[in-house]
Amino acid sequence: MKPSIPKGTRDFGPETMIKRNFILSTIKAVFEKYGFPPIETPTMENLSVLTGKYGNEGDQLIFKILNSGDFLSKTEVDDYKSGSKELLPKIAEKGLRYDLTVPFARFVVMNRNDITLPFKRYQTQPVWRADRPQRGRYREFYQCDADVVGTDSLLCEAEIVMMVNDAMNGLGIKNFEIKYNNRKILTAIAEVIGAAGKEAELCVAIDKLDKIGWDKVADELIGGGFTLENTKALLPFINLKGSNLEILNLLKNNLKSSSIGLEGCQEIERFEAFCESFGREKISLVLDTTLARGLSYYTGTIFELKSNDVAIGSIGGGGRYDNLTGVFGMNGLSGVGISFGVDRIYDVMSELNLFPEAKLTNTTVLLAPLDNEIQLAILKLADKLRMHNIKTEVYPDAVKIAKQFQFADKKGIPYVLVVGSEEIKSQKYTLKNMVTGEQKQMTDQEIIDILVK
Amino acid sequence: MKPSIPKGTRDFGPETMIKRNFILSTIKAVFEKYGFPPIETPTMENLSVLTGKYGNEGDQLIFKILNSGDFLSKTEVDDYKSGSKELLPKIAEKGLRYDLTVPFARFVVMNRNDITLPFKRYQTQPVWRADRPQRGRYREFYQCDADVVGTDSLLCEAEIVMMVNDAMNGLGIKNFEIKYNNRKILTAIAEVIGAAGKEAELCVAIDKLDKIGWDKVADELIGGGFTLENTKALLPFINLKGSNLEILNLLKNNLKSSSIGLEGCQEIERFEAFCESFGREKISLVLDTTLARGLSYYTGTIFELKSNDVAIGSIGGGGRYDNLTGVFGMNGLSGVGISFGVDRIYDVMSELNLFPEAKLTNTTVLLAPLDNEIQLAILKLADKLRMHNIKTEVYPDAVKIAKQFQFADKKGIPYVLVVGSEEIKSQKYTLKNMVTGEQKQMTDQEIIDILVK
Repeated sequence: MKPSIPKGTRDFGPETMIKRNFILSTIKAVFEKYGFPPIETPTMENLSVLTGKYGNEGDQLIFKILNSGDFLSKTEVDDYKSGSKELLPKIAEKGLRYDLTVPFARFVVMNRNDITLPFKRYQTQPVWRADRPQRGRYREFYQCDADVVGTDSLLCEAEIVMMVNDAMNGLGIKNFEIKYNNRKILTAIAEVIGAAGKEAELCVAIDKLDKIGWDKVADELIGGGFTLENTKALLPFINLKGSNLEILNLLKNNLKSSSIGLEGCQEIERFEAFCESFGREKISLVLDTTLARGLSYYTGTIFELKSNDVAIGSIGGGGRYDNLTGVFGMNGLSGVGISFGVDRIYDVMSELNLFPEAKLTNTTVLLAPLDNEIQLAILKLADKLRMHNIKTEVYPDAVKIAKQFQFADKKGIPYVLVVGSEEIKSQKYTLKNMVTGEQKQMTDQEIIDILVK
Repeated sequence: MKPSIPKGTRDFGPETMIKRNFILSTIKAVFEKYGFPPIETPTMENLSVLTGKYGNEGDQLIFKILNSGDFLSKTEVDDYKSGSKELLPKIAEKGLRYDLTVPFARFVVMNRNDITLPFKRYQTQPVWRADRPQRGRYREFYQCDADVVGTDSLLCEAEIVMMVNDAMNGLGIKNFEIKYNNRKILTAIAEVIGAAGKEAELCVAIDKLDKIGWDKVADELIGGGFTLENTKALLPFINLKGSNLEILNLLKNNLKSSSIGLEGCQEIERFEAFCESFGREKISLVLDTTLARGLSYYTGTIFELKSNDVAIGSIGGGGRYDNLTGVFGMNGLSGVGISFGVDRIYDVMSELNLFPEAKLTNTTVLLAPLDNEIQLAILKLADKLRMHNIKTEVYPDAVKIAKQFQFADKKGIPYVLVVGSEEIKSQKYTLKNMVTGEQKQMTDQEIIDILVK
């Protein structure tokens, strides 16, 4: 048989893994520097936990796990005849994790007695969506989230900006932009354009501005029950131009009839003040009243992170929610979070050539035995190098030395140490630098001094 | 609703994660020191890849994923009426990863043109089994494997022993034992006791010696078609006592009529010579002719790793296989691997108190604001500490200082830095050591000098 993997999934070989691990470990180190510890939740969640949290479309994209054993035992032929939708709940109770947010909310509720509020956590685990696979969209992909719940302090939003900045610097992505907005502004805009209470539809529609343009957004709004007057009144808010401060002043003026609008303006003001206060070199932080982040649980500040050099959409995003755990019976817990898109960051870094170099290995030196007799002696030398934490590989067979050099070359191992009976006797070995081609006889201590770096 | 998680699965909170990450990062660092790079394979595999590789029982323990969309569309009512087993292949094409070995074999075959032999890799990912959950047995658990394929050199077996030794030392598990045997010896024993060709049944039966004792093993063998003479002839091989060398000499003598037996003896001899050669302090390496490792693909050396201080079964194991990729059409690739049991290692370390200390956080210092006015100034100080890579948390609200101390105490944060308007003005802050209770006024540079360690 010729094996294959399910569509929309990927194998990650050593070269890709080394790069992906660089991204993940950089981001994790930033999260930990800001006091976020890791948690993990199970891959399988009960469907009762997942269903109804991601909209109708989302529910259909959840991968369901067949009950084990005789899964038909609790069904009757009429269940079969009613079709997939009716049969489903009788033969599947579990699904694969669809995002990291709902499991986090469940975790907080189930562990409410063990955690101390405000509670921070980060989580980097794969999620699964039965989406149609296409370029850049996979059925299994990693999310990389940090959230804090149990406080409504805008200091947390500012710390998220600092974390994004540190992460981008750590990865070498210099030219990036953080767009932000506040859901309260969008609620207030709905109010003042005469469509109070319709902020959900407004968010879904203007979220598409980038992709489909104003005319089609206006059409969609009108199709969804907005009047022509509503959309006309909306247009000025779409076209706001200027510095963050200028836009804020316009909003303060245009939304002054809305108390939630003024609340939103105050939050923006305080958030800006926090961001000013930490005094790093100016981060590109852009107030954008058309940022909406679609249909979601956000209620306050929302963010989106973009690379300015690669047109790939957002590489991260997040925001504040007032009641994430309410659906599981625990109300009044405000929180804010950020999620990095590992796959897109990978693509951005590849396109900008930001990965140190293509490597198939982390190994520093290959010990190359000249003959079979040498194999027993070579392990002791390998052990010595490894005790100095030098990443050392031993070629396991005494094949021709040319083949061993070729092996090191293909894998990108930077040094080869040639060892024969002569070398063991004289305790001097030939170290070849595979990049420069240079080779030299050295004692083991001299070799260690060169390789320990 | 009251949320829950599927039985046999677990949430890992910060305290558990910090400990688990210590185990995983220690083992990964050892693997990398020996030249193994990481790979990852998808969580979902096609059932055609998984089925038939783990025996009948294993096939039933694979979690199956329902095809997405209208999963009944390719079925008829007669399929339903034939029962779960008949319906299954028509409604589920994918399953969850059951171990890391079969996906690795698939990976090697699918990537044969991109990898260089001998090919090493390590892999630490969760696997899923629809087993009945019980103490210490979960439906989702991590495996942590390293394998090398494309060489039959016994140097690889010796390097595995070195890796096990380094990993145990790194984790602080001092009192451990590596039992080993060679499948060729078991094949030869089947031959010389008059049951040639029945080594598979022999392995399955004597694998249970520890648990059910000799009498029941003998019963099982006889029930499985062995004669009373066979089992009588087997008994001496079960009771072999002495040093590895003494046992080896007994085997050489008792198996001299079997060519595969002598081959096994030669392999043991060379393996012992390799292990001698690397000259570390004596590792407890015990030749045990009753070690069988159940029903599996092993054909040469087999290992089992045990803690001598905690009765929990094996905490790792592995062995050599001649033809792992044969089932996917790629023959003649010999390999050897080791798998660490992360959950059991966790239990051993807990029981022996080997974890540094119970921590709910990695944070070094909590910045505690005395009032709201201070919040803007505090981020700049936090930023300064973080630039020195000090793991710093800012309490996001200006609540009573006693509450902030309590927060640090509960989470085990070792230092609290109290910051009020006076402190900002004088540029001197009160650093409290939460362990000793000591507190002192200091400049930011003095604080950095203490916390950067």
